[in-house]
Amino acid sequence: MESSKRKILVTFTPLSEEQLTRLRAAASPEFELVIPSNFDEETSNITEITKIAKDCEIFFGHAIPEVLKSAKSLKWLHTQYAGVDGVLKPEVGLAEDVILTNSAGTFGIAISEYLVVVTLMLMRHMRMYMQQQQQHEWKQGGAIRSLYRSNVTVVGLGDIGSNFAQRCRSMGATVCGVVRTNRKSLPDCVDSLYTIDQLDDAIKDADVVALCLPGTTETAHLFDKARMLKMKKNALIINVGRGSAIDQEALVELLENGHLGGAGLDVTTPEPLPAESKLWDMPNVIITPHISGNYTLALTVELILEKFLAYLADYKEGKPFERVVDRRLGY
Amino acid sequence: MESSKRKILVTFTPLSEEQLTRLRAAASPEFELVIPSNFDEETSNITEITKIAKDCEIFFGHAIPEVLKSAKSLKWLHTQYAGVDGVLKPEVGLAEDVILTNSAGTFGIAISEYLVVVTLMLMRHMRMYMQQQQQHEWKQGGAIRSLYRSNVTVVGLGDIGSNFAQRCRSMGATVCGVVRTNRKSLPDCVDSLYTIDQLDDAIKDADVVALCLPGTTETAHLFDKARMLKMKKNALIINVGRGSAIDQEALVELLENGHLGGAGLDVTTPEPLPAESKLWDMPNVIITPHISGNYTLALTVELILEKFLAYLADYKEGKPFERVVDRRLGY
Repeated sequence: MESSKRKILVTFTPLSEEQLTRLRAAASPEFELVIPSNFDEETSNITEITKIAKDCEIFFGHAIPEVLKSAKSLKWLHTQYAGVDGVLKPEVGLAEDVILTNSAGTFGIAISEYLVVVTLMLMRHMRMYMQQQQQHEWKQGGAIRSLYRSNVTVVGLGDIGSNFAQRCRSMGATVCGVVRTNRKSLPDCVDSLYTIDQLDDAIKDADVVALCLPGTTETAHLFDKARMLKMKKNALIINVGRGSAIDQEALVELLENGHLGGAGLDVTTPEPLPAESKLWDMPNVIITPHISGNYTLALTVELILEKFLAYLADYKEGKPFERVVDRRLGY
Repeated sequence: MESSKRKILVTFTPLSEEQLTRLRAAASPEFELVIPSNFDEETSNITEITKIAKDCEIFFGHAIPEVLKSAKSLKWLHTQYAGVDGVLKPEVGLAEDVILTNSAGTFGIAISEYLVVVTLMLMRHMRMYMQQQQQHEWKQGGAIRSLYRSNVTVVGLGDIGSNFAQRCRSMGATVCGVVRTNRKSLPDCVDSLYTIDQLDDAIKDADVVALCLPGTTETAHLFDKARMLKMKKNALIINVGRGSAIDQEALVELLENGHLGGAGLDVTTPEPLPAESKLWDMPNVIITPHISGNYTLALTVELILEKFLAYLADYKEGKPFERVVDRRLGY
């Protein structure tokens, strides 16, 4: 009898048939997968999912607030995202006793390569060259910069930040990492390490400052006007964490007055970035629609599945998870 | 008497005042610098330069054919370029006894970073995102690729190729190098090494093929239609050497019919790329106006100066140069 099995609600849509088969095999015999029909993050049939979520024990994927509210049997939520700020909002009302795990650690490759490409695009005027290409125009531009012999400060040294740090070092940059709490030893990926309370010191000599931070109350407007004024004139700022880490009005001002040399933003406030934002047309700004990570890289989807499968194996055996989200810290 | 000094004609315009001062100091007391007034590669006063070139012993910079013809006292030409195909054209008539040195080895940083940025831009649809930015459009695109776990074949493993190879490896790619003549040991920057006669084998599994070749008769149309058909379907091809290495008509055809997944071209045939070329508007093509190297990166200019200064020290002491251009090989 299928219906006597314990249930895993799967709303992680990027999984292929082959991956679903592996997931199904890993879940059995105790668990069965419940997959909403025609599921889509944007146009999902909330009524259907809410109904089927009622007796699910595990939830894997995109956690819709309405669905969570009705999931009274829920014991474990594994979100497909690295950031849990959405699911931890008070209005979502995620019960305290639900174990929460996230997919941090699976986006390092995709997002660090985004950081590399956007940093180099800003350093080399690639947006201008793309505009010229559209005009069929062959015209050489001016001075460029290089990662080689540059100073890069990476704020947030999780999977994403440390992957980017390692890539910058391998291209000849001197890399400074900024972490929340001090570590016993210097990670291989950086030349120096600062804690967040030393942030002004960590950014003052940086040619590039990359923000790889979770969206928490602690990181909100961490880069306000005063902080960005501490950055070196003409420095670049890149943000792949949450738009909230930057005071966007102040950023526009410091780009306009020339204090900052450029910005690469995959996250903004709000999202989508409103069409009237000045940022769109600034020549030294690159805007992308929150695509640095997500699920367009097949490797990311595979790693998220592998992470869930590893947790699921532990869950079935009653072993504690390697890591659960610390709701107080927000990541 | 200044005029009794031996003369170095300097047409390498990117040098700063500070760099010229160092050059002048290194040249003295035997040599003096002769710097054409208002020199500019495009609008140079050929008549003036031709006149002052007559009694110059050394020529450092951009070697204009007309000037070379009149430089009857010339003993040594150090070109500011890595490629010497221009100066070796028969119509230039560079005398056999003029020692020719080039600036190969100074462009590795600038051009390898170009290769990184263009490869990742193609892998991640960054041209499309830049077009969307111009329209103030926030819209997420489809599947992307990664350098991580990809196969990269670098054809030509000089300073540029080996710098790119090293960067790809450090980002998790498996890198295959292709060289003209076999080496005694495997260079650190690659996982495997092929000679040019094994080129078909070297490219067949590559996700990215990067051409870092000098413009010689041997490299002309090295990537013709038959060769590019040996490449994996959907592979990317990037060219920073000379446009002549690729049969451009065949490239257009293989991009149109979907055999190749994209192209990044900093060099084309001819240059500038004619406005009517189909390449400009192909969504999976990135065109830049021969800017991967040149002198927009201050580091490149400094390295070229340092290279010339090292040679000049040897020249003054009558020591043989570490390396001169092999005119038969063309590099």
